[in-house]
Amino acid sequence: MISLSGQRLDASGIICDDSQGGITRGTSILKRGFAHMLKNGVVMDVTTVEQAKIAEKAGAVSVMVLDKLPSDVRKAGGVARTASIKIINEIMDSVTIPVMAKCRIGHVYEGMVLAESDVDMIDESEVLTPADEHHHIWKWDFTTPFVNGARSLAEALRRVEEGAAMIRTKGEPGTGNVAEAVTHIKKVNDELRHISALYNSGDKQGLVRTAREFGVSFDILRETAKLGRLPVVNFAAGGIATPADAAYLMSLGCDGIFVGSGIFSTNDALERARAIVMATTFWREPAKVSKAQSMIDERQSMLGLDASQMDIRMQERGGSA
Amino acid sequence: MISLSGQRLDASGIICDDSQGGITRGTSILKRGFAHMLKNGVVMDVTTVEQAKIAEKAGAVSVMVLDKLPSDVRKAGGVARTASIKIINEIMDSVTIPVMAKCRIGHVYEGMVLAESDVDMIDESEVLTPADEHHHIWKWDFTTPFVNGARSLAEALRRVEEGAAMIRTKGEPGTGNVAEAVTHIKKVNDELRHISALYNSGDKQGLVRTAREFGVSFDILRETAKLGRLPVVNFAAGGIATPADAAYLMSLGCDGIFVGSGIFSTNDALERARAIVMATTFWREPAKVSKAQSMIDERQSMLGLDASQMDIRMQERGGSA
Repeated sequence: MISLSGQRLDASGIICDDSQGGITRGTSILKRGFAHMLKNGVVMDVTTVEQAKIAEKAGAVSVMVLDKLPSDVRKAGGVARTASIKIINEIMDSVTIPVMAKCRIGHVYEGMVLAESDVDMIDESEVLTPADEHHHIWKWDFTTPFVNGARSLAEALRRVEEGAAMIRTKGEPGTGNVAEAVTHIKKVNDELRHISALYNSGDKQGLVRTAREFGVSFDILRETAKLGRLPVVNFAAGGIATPADAAYLMSLGCDGIFVGSGIFSTNDALERARAIVMATTFWREPAKVSKAQSMIDERQSMLGLDASQMDIRMQERGGSA
Repeated sequence: MISLSGQRLDASGIICDDSQGGITRGTSILKRGFAHMLKNGVVMDVTTVEQAKIAEKAGAVSVMVLDKLPSDVRKAGGVARTASIKIINEIMDSVTIPVMAKCRIGHVYEGMVLAESDVDMIDESEVLTPADEHHHIWKWDFTTPFVNGARSLAEALRRVEEGAAMIRTKGEPGTGNVAEAVTHIKKVNDELRHISALYNSGDKQGLVRTAREFGVSFDILRETAKLGRLPVVNFAAGGIATPADAAYLMSLGCDGIFVGSGIFSTNDALERARAIVMATTFWREPAKVSKAQSMIDERQSMLGLDASQMDIRMQERGGSA
């Protein structure tokens, strides 16, 4: 499953593959293409087969398997690790939509274990306890696509350079508070506008200086500036609890939504899952978003935590590397 | 003369040229090739036609035209700028070896002026007063090759990424003290050994982390680590005053020597120039270096300055960008 595939980064998503053998598993075009197929969809955190079936029924494009929902990870404390392979296998046998699972930041062997288990995508996630404070997994070595969190354009591009096929905002998982995700996506948008302006004015000195500040190559920065968007799909994640949250983040330019604790820590899970899918799909139509919002019982929504008051800020994990 | 040539960086020196039109002026292969032709040679600072003729007669591979020798720049103080185009033209008309000239760090239009004057190479030099504290010239936009100074591998690779076709150590110009040049080349060698070890052990996480510390792309760092040397020729410069200085720096892996104030601030210029050329060419043969050293009158050598005692440390100019 894992191969030293010799792939080269190409910010525009065009494959640079030394193997030259047509489209094979693990090429950039396939890994990024898989992520692209999830566009405009909702990926839901699940901990059991039952939850996975509800997610599928509600129209989720994929499920993310965890042992505990992020809000419970937060309450439990201690070291959070990759999910039980047994549960991952059971869920893969029970649903037809793609199955994702999380590994710890920098934990190359949790990544390998998940890749060998044939999950469809691996989330190198700050919800789990980081295994390496200074490095992320070198994801080009895997044929399974990876998604990574980012709070800024610099962080996103560093992850893409390491081989991430998809980016999501980091938000603050398990809080039911969408504020951090909104802040991060707006920061990314501001930074994209800044580098696009440098590109359009032909300021290569400014581009190379920004590349150095970001810790990425001039080439990926220039390609991103030219595109005016990330070279991979970018989902919103962290604190999304209601249909209106999902629609708002889509309107800010996100390509789709991850919902963590927002669904299965409530008692109206199926309806809420359906409503969030509806609001994500039809975010351009306020009437439908309003209808979706009316499907949920707001008294059931996560109470929410104030991210500034918390002891553990998961979003900061792995951010400086 | 100046064109937006659309060239892409290729650390190994293989040309990536969008123009696709065979070997034309300004391609990487020609710019780096020109620098390569100077290998094992001595480039001498000159301020007059007479000095240029002496340098040519003594066997210099090229002359660098300045208004004042670095030691006089240091004494004079004030803002040091590119040399008089009249003198550059006179010298180009008087000698058959290539002629170089210096422009200020980041001064794009001094670079253009020199390029239009048809000098063979431009030195974006810390001996002159920097014109931009935060950016160097984007040298890919020029068809004329550039040489830049560097005190570390990181600085050297940042300059190569900007299009430098040749690197020289920064030393401390105009001092007659070789200590700084020795320190810089040994630092570069240490850093090359470090990244080569990362490359040989397959540690891509270590390589990408180093690339981010250096502020360069993963690709150029990996290619340099694979080569085990800089992807362009690397000359010694700064404080070289005697044949033994030149031979010592060649033994540390330098590809050639720049001599600034070391020759024409003495009264035995022709003999000293010949002796330094001889020691540079035959640095592997101690008897010949010894003979070269005996050709100079040591009482005539630059008295030398202690770099740690100086008000102006030219080597630090442009180093952080």
